[in-house]
This record gives sequence, structure tokens and C-alpha cells, in this order.
Amino acid sequence: MTEAPTLQSLIAGRWLGAEPAAPLSSAIDGRTVCHTHAERIDFAEAVHHARARGLTELLKLDFQARAARLKAIAAFLLENKEKLYEISRHTGATRGDSWIDIEGGAGTLYAYASMGAGELPSGNLIHEGPAISLGKQGRFAGTHVLVPRGGVAVHINAFNFPVWGLLEKFAPSFLAGMPCIAKPATSTSYLTEAAVRLLHESGLLPEGSLQLVIGGTGDLLERLDTQDVVTFTGSADTAAKLRVHPNLVARSVPFNAEADSLNCAILADDVSPDDEEFDLFVREVVREMTVKAGQKCTAIRRALVPRRHLDAVAERLAQRLARVVVGDPAVEGVKMGALASRAQQADVAERVAQLARGSEIVFGDRGSFQPVGEGVKGGAFFAPTLLLRRDAGDAAVHDVEAFGPVSTLLPYEDLDHAVDLAARGKGSLVTTLATRDPAVAARVVPALARWHGRVHILDREAATESTGHGSPLPALKHGGPGRAGGGEELGGIRAVKHYLQRAAVQGSPTMLTAVTQEYVRGAQVREETVHPFRKHFEDLAIGDSLLTHRRTVTEADIVAFGGLSGDYFYMHFDEIAAKESPFGKRIAHGYFVLSAAAGLFVSPGKGPVLANYGLDTLRFVKPVGIGDTIQARLTCKRKIDRPAKKGQEPQGVVAWDVQVTNQDGELVASYDILTLVSKLPAKP
Amino acid sequence: MTEAPTLQSLIAGRWLGAEPAAPLSSAIDGRTVCHTHAERIDFAEAVHHARARGLTELLKLDFQARAARLKAIAAFLLENKEKLYEISRHTGATRGDSWIDIEGGAGTLYAYASMGAGELPSGNLIHEGPAISLGKQGRFAGTHVLVPRGGVAVHINAFNFPVWGLLEKFAPSFLAGMPCIAKPATSTSYLTEAAVRLLHESGLLPEGSLQLVIGGTGDLLERLDTQDVVTFTGSADTAAKLRVHPNLVARSVPFNAEADSLNCAILADDVSPDDEEFDLFVREVVREMTVKAGQKCTAIRRALVPRRHLDAVAERLAQRLARVVVGDPAVEGVKMGALASRAQQADVAERVAQLARGSEIVFGDRGSFQPVGEGVKGGAFFAPTLLLRRDAGDAAVHDVEAFGPVSTLLPYEDLDHAVDLAARGKGSLVTTLATRDPAVAARVVPALARWHGRVHILDREAATESTGHGSPLPALKHGGPGRAGGGEELGGIRAVKHYLQRAAVQGSPTMLTAVTQEYVRGAQVREETVHPFRKHFEDLAIGDSLLTHRRTVTEADIVAFGGLSGDYFYMHFDEIAAKESPFGKRIAHGYFVLSAAAGLFVSPGKGPVLANYGLDTLRFVKPVGIGDTIQARLTCKRKIDRPAKKGQEPQGVVAWDVQVTNQDGELVASYDILTLVSKLPAKP
Repeated sequence: MTEAPTLQSLIAGRWLGAEPAAPLSSAIDGRTVCHTHAERIDFAEAVHHARARGLTELLKLDFQARAARLKAIAAFLLENKEKLYEISRHTGATRGDSWIDIEGGAGTLYAYASMGAGELPSGNLIHEGPAISLGKQGRFAGTHVLVPRGGVAVHINAFNFPVWGLLEKFAPSFLAGMPCIAKPATSTSYLTEAAVRLLHESGLLPEGSLQLVIGGTGDLLERLDTQDVVTFTGSADTAAKLRVHPNLVARSVPFNAEADSLNCAILADDVSPDDEEFDLFVREVVREMTVKAGQKCTAIRRALVPRRHLDAVAERLAQRLARVVVGDPAVEGVKMGALASRAQQADVAERVAQLARGSEIVFGDRGSFQPVGEGVKGGAFFAPTLLLRRDAGDAAVHDVEAFGPVSTLLPYEDLDHAVDLAARGKGSLVTTLATRDPAVAARVVPALARWHGRVHILDREAATESTGHGSPLPALKHGGPGRAGGGEELGGIRAVKHYLQRAAVQGSPTMLTAVTQEYVRGAQVREETVHPFRKHFEDLAIGDSLLTHRRTVTEADIVAFGGLSGDYFYMHFDEIAAKESPFGKRIAHGYFVLSAAAGLFVSPGKGPVLANYGLDTLRFVKPVGIGDTIQARLTCKRKIDRPAKKGQEPQGVVAWDVQVTNQDGELVASYDILTLVSKLPAKP
Repeated sequence: MTEAPTLQSLIAGRWLGAEPAAPLSSAIDGRTVCHTHAERIDFAEAVHHARARGLTELLKLDFQARAARLKAIAAFLLENKEKLYEISRHTGATRGDSWIDIEGGAGTLYAYASMGAGELPSGNLIHEGPAISLGKQGRFAGTHVLVPRGGVAVHINAFNFPVWGLLEKFAPSFLAGMPCIAKPATSTSYLTEAAVRLLHESGLLPEGSLQLVIGGTGDLLERLDTQDVVTFTGSADTAAKLRVHPNLVARSVPFNAEADSLNCAILADDVSPDDEEFDLFVREVVREMTVKAGQKCTAIRRALVPRRHLDAVAERLAQRLARVVVGDPAVEGVKMGALASRAQQADVAERVAQLARGSEIVFGDRGSFQPVGEGVKGGAFFAPTLLLRRDAGDAAVHDVEAFGPVSTLLPYEDLDHAVDLAARGKGSLVTTLATRDPAVAARVVPALARWHGRVHILDREAATESTGHGSPLPALKHGGPGRAGGGEELGGIRAVKHYLQRAAVQGSPTMLTAVTQEYVRGAQVREETVHPFRKHFEDLAIGDSLLTHRRTVTEADIVAFGGLSGDYFYMHFDEIAAKESPFGKRIAHGYFVLSAAAGLFVSPGKGPVLANYGLDTLRFVKPVGIGDTIQARLTCKRKIDRPAKKGQEPQGVVAWDVQVTNQDGELVASYDILTLVSKLPAKP
């Protein structure tokens, strides 16, 4: 026992811990893997360090730079992943289970790096526009901004995903510019510690941006303030306790909970035993029972099937479960490992006993269960257990969760009944609907969506690429209503916004432009002799503007444009029909107006503008008739500075506001164009 | 006293209450206006009625129909507004104060009617896209939907805005399809009762969509469940108590708080006493002290000014305050009315006494204060009171709120100090920054945004149209962090989303199309012999698609297009420069590809498609070179059915997905076009 190392907390930039405290055991053989440390953590110091150093260092970077940093961190982690796989084995995980945890975690960092680079601005303020005019003369407008909260994110995590659990919360809070204090569940904290140690050693983490707490949280929550955020993943009971913490309540500290729940999967009644979807459903249930030995807050605890197929499903499930080899993941052929601890093993056994009252046991003979491998007697193994309850209305099955390889089959009468049974879980993270029929999905999914954070529709088309019922994805919301905690994690950039503070901003367009760093119509513009398309990225300022020469639109233009494009729509070519239309006359093609506007503002020679790669929110506000004279105003609206990419000319994204007006100064077309603009040539 | 009527609750479609209980007094003269009722409310019945009837009736309508209904309700309310003005007087409000409450409330209904019609879909599900491909072959994708929660919204409101407070919460929850149970503060509930009575008599409210509670909430909160929502406006203390209500916590019932806070206004140090902004600041502070007799959760409690201008500001404020006539609003020339009740009067006096310790009283001689009008001795009047504290760091001034016509002047040393002082309020609803300098706004506003729900920038340009520091607007977020409750109301369609449940949905594109009623690329399409542009709105189905003939792009096209548009960009015309570019050759204009695609898919004759009014998210994915052959696919993506408008041909909005590909099937351009499509002619 004395040889097992002592884990360390990372507090205020120092690794703390030498004196061993509680032993933590391998889930495979029960041997002591390591100890927690006996030293007390000074949480005042931790919070102060996060605020004083972490925050400062993070905000020296901006959204784009933090996105680039996340990518580097992800790459470093993947390069060193084998160190984590070695340790992960002690948690009872198979290689496949560890893949979800370790590479799933790194993948989440990559995903946030990519979404951050693609969707977030430069700087440390997000303009959540568009700005809205609040006065008739356009001198007062309003919009929204999101800014770093200026606080600390405390992430309290569950034992089942020691790496992914850390990283899926770290990634969005890091992007948002919020230092983290991570507190993993103690039983598997040795793997989280190894991951944090790697990140720390990478040299890629800004000082103070990530601290690690091994053991309890002490008085950490008392130390928090309004600008901080607390997230929790774990049981619904603990979530409810933390939510009412007096200091969090007094200071309105945002608290996000993600609790395990009694997720279900539904085999829709359009699927017959001969359909591929029937087997897909069976496979999904088995997968969710056995991956991570069923220790996923998203696992399928209730499998709802049409009563007429109940026995057929039970039979196929039993057949598949019989093929699952349980034991030491180091042994060839083992498909399912152990629970995370003996404590979990006892807990699951107790819940199964509760659930078994009034149920048939379809699979899972406790007597004959024998995991493979040496030393497994000291491990925390548990036999995959499938129950069947013919009375689907029973309360326990919708309320008691065995957090292990355990699921219960329930019959339903019709799809409305299935939806009612799903809702009996009182709010869940995810549900799967296996169906062939889009009309069934269209009817049932909205009803399921009320009660679930995620709805997974399984059919033969999706199955070839489905990431499965149990996998939260960075781009999709994770978290469900009610029992599941009522929280929201992930979901793309939504998650970053959860760590930012939203404020409405009102003022003149000029002021809003200065604050949002995005041109708001009506703001003062800067007109210079040099064409803005002749400026390099660095020299361009928001509000740089060009008012073009004019062009009178003639009948010949319409005729020529129709001939060239092939667009002979009656509104441009049929005098009779056009007269009867609301416009009362032939008008120019909208695309001609767009093309002619480009002709007005383009700067033909080679220059810093590399390409016009897109166009957004084009509106043809008023028709342009024969004899109308158009003019365009082009104004630099938004700049996104991106870190240089290998093999690419250094460049940034510039969006331009375009307003095309007629001879009366009325707006006829309005849009944004998106360009790539090269940076200044490097000095020799 | 016996002549004063008894108020009634509206529960389960019946007006309840005949037996008088507590008397409610006029704020002007102290006479009894009415009584609460003695009858107990059966909250089980109220909640059941909301769920069983209200929800059903609301969801028979869809977003568009509810938006139209809101508009009708707003119009009805305005037609009958004088009934409310009459009663409003008893709350102590001037005509101007009542305007904010009554017409501000109706205006909020109008605003939500308009935003709902413009931004929400048909049906009862919002697709919060775009869908994201989750597999390499595009057979598995994910997206988000928002659906009605299927529960009840309980709105607990403050006494200061009996009508607006009701309607600003009713509007978004009604749009979302959520029945409301409104519980106004008792002291001014007679005005809310009058408003609800009007709405009820209008016949425009779906049965059960709005119930009214006069008096206490009894066991209402115990009756709520996961799908319900509770909102609260009032004191921070009460918010903290409600937030930890065991039933709300156990069921993760969303709870939104909007608490009054110690809002500040900052006179930036670039403003000198000669500047217009100096007077604008003074005027704003006086306005916020006197409108509603300072009983606004957004009122300015702390006015922060550069130390060197402290006395100048104090002097001008005192001058302006001296001109404010306080008294019975029925008397000509009265600018400020009474507090809502004698209880409030006593409370404000106590807080002023607290604040006055260590402060100078700049204005507000309690001894000589004499409101004008008859019978005002029994009223709840309070003298406008301006304090000045030269030690800005004092704790009380940042913590004690006198909810009346009371404000404290504080000096700051520099703008960082001003921001620090603002933050001492521990989270506020709103702040005003008066400045001339956009650079000051750009620097200070993001720092203020951390601590405030709204930041109002005041300068001479904005002032001509500014709605002012104290006015929450439907389009802008209302609610601040920390002491302000940490909630979010209003903010446009955001508020509607707060009353919906968000779920991620995963599946094949075909399934996602069926669920979201929006075409997801990769989904099965329906190709018929009839061109989709020849179909009327009702006959079009999501997924109706046209694959066009092809067109080979030639050098002649580029030349002709350049000649016609005037766009001679080097990438199309300069062989030498184009060769050096990343594309390595001359390429066709993006706008030519767009125009030629229209030529491929347009159906020239007069038909149901009335106009192409816009285009979204155009991306030029790949260049089109000389000799490339392009082809377009046009697919019906989204339909929005709108109630008919007078004098307009019945029509709906149809968005089309356009993909332009080259001879290798590669995507070259991708966008949505927006059209108006007429409905089937009415049968004779």
C-alpha cells in the first residue's frame, strides 16, 4: 500500500500533496492504485489565483487565440494519450470505454477549437446582433453583447468520465475566457489528475487557467461571487442540495446541473421483427447496457416496445447479451469491464434488487456470473442484467436507477402510451426512437422533446453513421429537464455563451459601432481618397466607407441581363403581366442590381482583397425600374483576425455592409458581403 | 368603506370573490379603493384548468396565429385604455406614469405580435438550425428544436407596474403556447384586475390561457411540476426565498428573477459642464428620480460624476428638482405623484434615514414638503430627495435601496474607479454612461456589461430619440446579474424561448426534415413533372425539388458579364494576375453563377411565385472556370403560413434551398432564396 503514489491537487500553480490520505482502489482487482492527499487546500488562495492570474492571462488572449490554443492542447493530449489509457484501465474501462473518455475528450477540445475559430470574433466581446433601430430617425439603436464574466468556473464532475468530464466543461469555459477549478469525483480522480498533469506539462495552459482539486470542495462554494459559475454532473439528489447553497443563492451564481436520469429507448410500432430497425434497436440497448459497464448518465434504463413484440425483443436481447464477455479488459476478447468501485457494485446490486421485485429477469444470472481474468475477485464487476416488467405502469421502474449494466424492458399499447411512459422518467437526458416512418418521427419527436434534452432517431439510413444513443456531442445540447437537472451543456457555441454575460446596449449608432466593433447603420463613417478594397487587413477600420459613382438602369440592361443569365421572368420581360403585378411595370432583375452594384464598388486591379466568398441577408427592399439611377455604399462592417495557417497567405475575414439606393435616396437592396483580405507584407 | 368593491380572482374561467377581506387604499388620499376577497382559491383547480384547457386551447393555435391574436388583444386594450387610466390614478401615478404602465404594456403586446409574426414559424415547433452533418456521408445529422413545454407559467409581479408587469410576461409566454397564472402584488392588484377583466371581456383570450390570483399564492408553488415555469419580479430577498422552494428545486422548475437593484448612471470624464451631455445627464437623473415617484427597479440610485464636477452637478440637479411639482396627479401642473402605499412611504423614509448618515442632503427638505391637491394628507407622497456623499466607498450607498424618488451623488477619481463603484452594486439591471467620446464607450461599456443587464449610452445624438435609462424595451434583454436576480426577460424572441423546451434531435436527414418541417440536405426529395414554382402555397411540400438542365460556362459569358455589370475584377479579366492567384486561372464572376442559376431554375411565366425578395447565406464554395458545366438543384426548404392581410393577395413565405454543382457533382455555390408564394384562388 505504501508504494501507491499520492495524488496531488494543482492549486495556484503548485502541485499540493505528499501525505497520503484515503486509498483509491483499482476496479479490476481491488488493489490500491493511489491515495488522496491529506494536506488541506486553501480555497481562498485557489479562487484568488484564478481571478488574479488565470483571468488576466486568459484575457490577454482573445476568442480566436484561445481557439487556436485549444487546438494545440488537443493535439498534445492525443500525442500523449497512451499514458492515460494505461491508467484508465484501473477505472474498470475497456479500451473502447477509455476511447470515449480520452479521445472523446480530446475530440471535444478539437470541436470547440474549430467552432471557436469559425464562429467567434476576434477580441473579447461577442456582438449578438443585429442592432435594432429604436427611433424613427435612426439616431438611437439597441443591440446585445456578450462579455467574459470576469469570474471563475467551478466544475464538479462525476466519476464515470474522468477525462471527457473535465474537458467538455473546460473547453467552452476556456474559450469564454474563464479560469476553471475542476473537482473530479474522488474515486477515479487519479485519471483526471494524470490528464491535468499532462495539460500542465504541455506549457500550453495560461497560468491559473486550470486548477485541480483532489478530495472535497471544503469552503470553495462559500468563496464564490456573482461573476462565477458552478457546474455539477452527478446525482439528482446532490444537484438539488448544491442548487440551494446559501452563498450561490444569495449572489445569484449561475448553477448548471446535469444529472443522470432514467433514459428510455422506444421501438416504434411501425417496426416489425423483420425490419433492420428491430435489430438496430436491440443492438443499441445492448450497447448502452455494456459500454462503460452501463455507467453513463445517458444509458438506456427503460426499453419500451410494443406489447406484441415484447418477447421477441427479450429473446434477441438475451442472445446478444450472452455474447458479451465480461472481465479484465486486459484479457483478449473482453467486451465489458468493471464498475468504477466496490461501492458502486454494492449500490447497483441494491437497486437491482429493488427493480427485480415484480419483474422477470430475462438475463443476468447472478449465481453463475464469473468475470474473466486473474485477480478479478477483488474487482467491481457486475453481470449485465436485463429485467422485464409486464406492468409498465409500475412506479419503481420509472424512478429507481441502477447505475450499471442494467435495463428494464417494458411493453406499451400505442405510441401515445409510449410517450407517456417516457415522460414518467420525469425528465431525461436522451431518448432513442427507432422507426422506419418519417411521419411517426414527425408526430412523436416533438412530444418527446418536451421531456428530453436530446432525441435520437434510429433507422437504417442513420445507423451507418450514428454516433449512438449514449454519446453527447460537442455540437448538440447535453442536459435535460426535470430529474436530469434542467441544465444545458455543449450545444456548440451555446455552451460558450453560458460562460459569458449578456447585456443589452443602447445608444447612437456611432456609439454602438465603437462598442461592438461592428458597423451599425447610421454611424459616422470615414471616407478617404483611397478605396477601402486597396487597404490591407491591418489598415482597415470599422466604418471605412466608399460611396460609389451612379448608374442609370436602362431597358437595354434588363434585356442584356435576361439574355446572358437566361432569366426571362415575366416581371422583367412581360409588359402585360408586369402591369398587373403589384409593381405595375417591368423591373430590373434583383441579381442585375446586385451585379451592377459590384461593378460600382469593385476595385479591378490585384489588391489585398483576395476573394468575395459569400453574401448574407440580401433583401431586395424596393424594385428598380427602367430609368432609375442606383448608387452603392460599401462600409467595412466587421473584421475577424485569424492566426496564420501554414501554406496560406496571412489574411483575415472582412465583412462589408452594402446599401444600394436609388435616385431618391431610398434603399433598394441591402446585404453583407464576405471577403478575405490579406495582411501587410512582412517587413524584410 | 362598504361601498368599495371587492376584487375578484379569475380561476378556472370563473370570477371568484364576493366577501371583502383586506382594504386597499388610494395612494393619493388614503381612501379605500377596494378590498381583496376572503374566499380561498383552489390552486389545484387553477393549475388543472391551465393544463387541461389553457394548454389545449393555446396549442390549437400556432405561433403565427397566437401572434395575430396578441395584436388583436393589444388593439382592444388600447381602445379601452381610459378605463385603466381612471383606476391607475389611485396607485399614485401621473398620466405620464400611467402611460408607461398601460400603453407601455399594450406596446409590449404589439411588439411581441410583430416579432412573432416576423420571426416565428408556422406550427408549434421552432427549428433552431442549421442542421449539422455528423457523419462523412451525410446520412446522420443533428439539430435543435424548441417545443412548447406543456406546462403553466406562474408570474409573480411587483406593485409598481400593475399592467405592464402583467403584459410583458404574458406576451412571450402566450406566444410560446403557455397558459399563465398571474399573481400581482396585492397593493395595486385592483389595476391588474381591471386589465385582466378587460382582456377576459374581449373574448380574445383562449379559455384558460390567463388566470388571475388576488391575494396570496397559497399552495400554488407546491402544485407545480417540471414543465412549468415561475417568474418573479420584486425584492432580491423574496427572490432568494422563492428560488429555494423545495418543490421548485426537486423538479428543476425554471425560476426567473428580476429584482430591483442599485442602478447607477455615470457622467464620463470627457464631458465638461458646457457640453450638452452634461445637461442630458442631469435631466436623466431627475427623470429617473421622479417618474413613478422613483418606484422603478431600473431607477438611478447612484449618480457617479467626476469629483471636479460634483458640485456643478449637484447644483443643476437641485435646480431641476425644485421645479418638480409633487401632488395629486389630477391637479394641473403636477409632475410627480405618490408612492404606491403608506407602507412604502414608511419604508422609503427609513431607508433615506439610513442613507443620510454621512451624506449631505442636496435637495429634499422633509419639513417644508407639501404636496399639492385636496385630501393629499392621507396620501403616500414623498419629497424628491437627492443626497451627496463625498466618500464614494461607503458601503450603505451601494447596498441600501430607497424605492422612491431618492438618489445619491457620488464622486469618482477616474473611469476605472467609476466602473469599480458601479460594480459595488453587486449586479444591476441597468446603467447609463453619458459620454461624447466613442473611445470611452468602447473601453468602459464592456466592463460595465459584466455587471449590468443593460447599458444605456447617452450622448447628444442618441438623446433626441432615447427611450431613457429606466425603460425596458421588448426587443432588449431586461434583467441583470447578481443582486438584480440573475434573470432574463424580454430581449425579443429570446423571451419566447425561455418558455419553450430546447432539445437536440439526431437522425437521418429525411427524419430531421420530417421533424423540423425544414428541408435538411441529404433528405429524400420529391421530384415531379410540375415545376415547384408553378405550385400554390398550399400545394407545395417541404422537399419538393427541381434538378435543372445544365449550362456550360464560357469565356464569352465572363466577358459579357463583365461588360454588363462593370465588374472587371482581375480574377475574371487579368490572365497574368489570375495565374498568380490561388485559383491559378481566370474564373467566372460569383454573381454570374448566381444569375445563371436563376436562369436555370426560373419559371418565366406568371405564376404563384410573386417575388424573390431576398437571399441568405450565399457561399461560393468552389470557383467556376471556363468550360465548367453547372447545374442547380432547387428544393422547397421552409414554409411560413401567415394570416391574410387586408388588401394583399393571400400568400405565404417559402424559402428554397439552392445548390449549384459542377460537372463533377461538386458544390460550387450554396444559398437559400426567399419568395412570396400566393395561395390557391378562393373557390367561387
